[in-house]
Amino acid sequence: MQIYKAHILFTEHSDRFEVFENGYLAVDNGIVKGVYKTLPESLRNEHVTDFGDKLLIPAMCDMHVHAPQYRNQGIAMDLELLPWLDNYTFPEESKYRDIKYAERMYRRFVRDVWRFGTMRTVAFATIHKDSTRLLMNLFNEAGMGALVGKVDMNRNSPDTLTETVEDAVRDNEELIAEFNHDGALVRPIITPRFVPSCTPEMLTACGELAKRHNLHVQSHLSENTGEIAWVSELEPDSANYGDAYNKYGLFGQTPTIMAHCVWTDGEELQLMKRNGVMVAHCPTSNFNLSSGMAPIRRFLNEGIPVGLGSDISGGHDLSIFRMMVYAIQVSKMQYQKDKSKAFLTLPEAFWIATKSAGRFFGKVGSFEPGYEFDALVIDDSQLNHDNYSLLHRIERFVYLGDDRNIVHRFCRGKEIAEPKI
Amino acid sequence: MQIYKAHILFTEHSDRFEVFENGYLAVDNGIVKGVYKTLPESLRNEHVTDFGDKLLIPAMCDMHVHAPQYRNQGIAMDLELLPWLDNYTFPEESKYRDIKYAERMYRRFVRDVWRFGTMRTVAFATIHKDSTRLLMNLFNEAGMGALVGKVDMNRNSPDTLTETVEDAVRDNEELIAEFNHDGALVRPIITPRFVPSCTPEMLTACGELAKRHNLHVQSHLSENTGEIAWVSELEPDSANYGDAYNKYGLFGQTPTIMAHCVWTDGEELQLMKRNGVMVAHCPTSNFNLSSGMAPIRRFLNEGIPVGLGSDISGGHDLSIFRMMVYAIQVSKMQYQKDKSKAFLTLPEAFWIATKSAGRFFGKVGSFEPGYEFDALVIDDSQLNHDNYSLLHRIERFVYLGDDRNIVHRFCRGKEIAEPKI
Repeated sequence: MQIYKAHILFTEHSDRFEVFENGYLAVDNGIVKGVYKTLPESLRNEHVTDFGDKLLIPAMCDMHVHAPQYRNQGIAMDLELLPWLDNYTFPEESKYRDIKYAERMYRRFVRDVWRFGTMRTVAFATIHKDSTRLLMNLFNEAGMGALVGKVDMNRNSPDTLTETVEDAVRDNEELIAEFNHDGALVRPIITPRFVPSCTPEMLTACGELAKRHNLHVQSHLSENTGEIAWVSELEPDSANYGDAYNKYGLFGQTPTIMAHCVWTDGEELQLMKRNGVMVAHCPTSNFNLSSGMAPIRRFLNEGIPVGLGSDISGGHDLSIFRMMVYAIQVSKMQYQKDKSKAFLTLPEAFWIATKSAGRFFGKVGSFEPGYEFDALVIDDSQLNHDNYSLLHRIERFVYLGDDRNIVHRFCRGKEIAEPKI
Repeated sequence: MQIYKAHILFTEHSDRFEVFENGYLAVDNGIVKGVYKTLPESLRNEHVTDFGDKLLIPAMCDMHVHAPQYRNQGIAMDLELLPWLDNYTFPEESKYRDIKYAERMYRRFVRDVWRFGTMRTVAFATIHKDSTRLLMNLFNEAGMGALVGKVDMNRNSPDTLTETVEDAVRDNEELIAEFNHDGALVRPIITPRFVPSCTPEMLTACGELAKRHNLHVQSHLSENTGEIAWVSELEPDSANYGDAYNKYGLFGQTPTIMAHCVWTDGEELQLMKRNGVMVAHCPTSNFNLSSGMAPIRRFLNEGIPVGLGSDISGGHDLSIFRMMVYAIQVSKMQYQKDKSKAFLTLPEAFWIATKSAGRFFGKVGSFEPGYEFDALVIDDSQLNHDNYSLLHRIERFVYLGDDRNIVHRFCRGKEIAEPKI
């Protein structure tokens, strides 16, 4: 049993922070046992780790990130989608055939995920089995949770990033056999890149893999209008882009997350709702790639699950705290146009990034009893120069803080040290 | 004469960076004499300060910031404009009657402006003469350039922030006599808060002050639709919000900057163009306060001068580098809706933040001969882990870097030390 004392804040509900000023949190075997204003009699003999005036909050979940685009973070942002893919994204991903290159970059990537306080990641790797395995091992070594996808793609892709369906299935099966264990912190996720990159045969094979092994699924959905038009040409029998995944068993038949959903509406939105498909909202990327602004309030109103994604390198920022700010700002632009769409509050954005996103991993993202203890200790003393309230302190940290303020990180109850690069 | 050696980048033109890899920059008496690929014979005997692999770039200009809202930075962002003003902004500004409180906050404010590499600031203070003087002295002490406005307001304001026209004129005259000297680094700027806060008599008095002393003018313009409707009620004889300043001599009769201009269009835009009124584009604030997205490409196409503003505390971020990213993102959302409106490139955003903004201070914001040497030395070694090109290095610093990367700051040729708090 571990007891931590600090100012504890988390979002059990989306409309407010639970606040325990100088509170106590008990962890047993990696699982939260309870949060207390005063320490219960039964726990009075336990050792207490006292974080003093610091904040203790749930760790972040990054629900969409391309790990092999790490080198491209913050470059080529003046390009449009197609030249960006052809001149930067695909050539960079092609390099991950070289395991030495992959190791050099993936070590830095995992270190930076750690820096920004993200303890659970849903990541695209590349088509390459060996470097995908390496990335999974690096997350395991670090002790940080991840769902990592070997990317599957066999059309409209450069030769260096094209595989056969048979190769894709064989490589996935190998990784699944190696990593798909009950309770594993790092697990495979079935990852067709997106409809334009995958023939019907590939999509069929992906759906079968997901079903056979009861695996999570991730892909991209309705990111920009040109892409949607292209998908409707490629899949003329599908009612919409989402339906093109659905008919292959890749849209909620197992737990599924779709990145972007900027233009999701109508039947596609209803299908997501019926199937419980989660949205990985990537507001920074949607700005940088001129995609648009996703209807985040609409998703919440409809009860569609939502999390936040950095989407490196369409996005340029690995901080999920920064994604909260951007998500609020996107919602404010929609509110400006239509006052019936209330903008996101800070507790809502925090809830989306933690408890809402965390359900994709099990019981993650809150400090309610039974949740895995994924947590950050925040030293905001530099920001708290004038006796701010705890609610203002968390707001200032989210808006103004950075990795310097994160002084301890926990995943499943274990303190996570800085990964070696 | 000082000679600096580094990788030198600046934007003489908005469409590209001038790049001098391992170049030299000569400064004489605070003024740039030249930038060279190889050091000219005539300068071979001068001492060279070698910054090695670091970047040397122009320092930033923050064209709109409310210094007395420093304590409110990053709080109360879940409120709408009116409760935000009534419950946070006005009560906070009222505290600046207390010079001790003002000193505690203004010292931190000036230190943070320094941290983020901003060497020229156009700031609102409060109605209080003494704390305005203090802020001006703190900028002078630091050696950093600023145009600081004692705010004038006498209607629709709380009693604690309401003055008579006579008091406003007297207090302005006192500060003008003290600070308005040729070549001074810190000077007064005439600052009617905005039309709703100022009676016609106050606006008339402000216009006369500006004309009598040939002073710069700043205010707010067309930030949100409710405000615009209010102004048209208050000033029914004005053709538009901008015209309401124009008729009092506050719209380009002397050098004028107007914050926001989110909804500026039609006649107002043409009037700005004719009068050479500069826009302080504050994209983060415009998101946070649900104001909207300013037509930045339109302003550039029309030749209207533009700079970037942090607008603390409507904005939450003092970094003008971050404002460049936001300005690009706003332009990309407008491009998404209308492909004829090309989005801003990085060189354009950099040019807006430096050379374009800098003309409000004289010859500031570029490294062409004759410009004042306002500069930053950037150590991006942590970001440059894989031999990026210089253009990618500046892009990564703007998108990913922070104050840790800024290792030297110069204003008018003098290295600026960290201001004491």
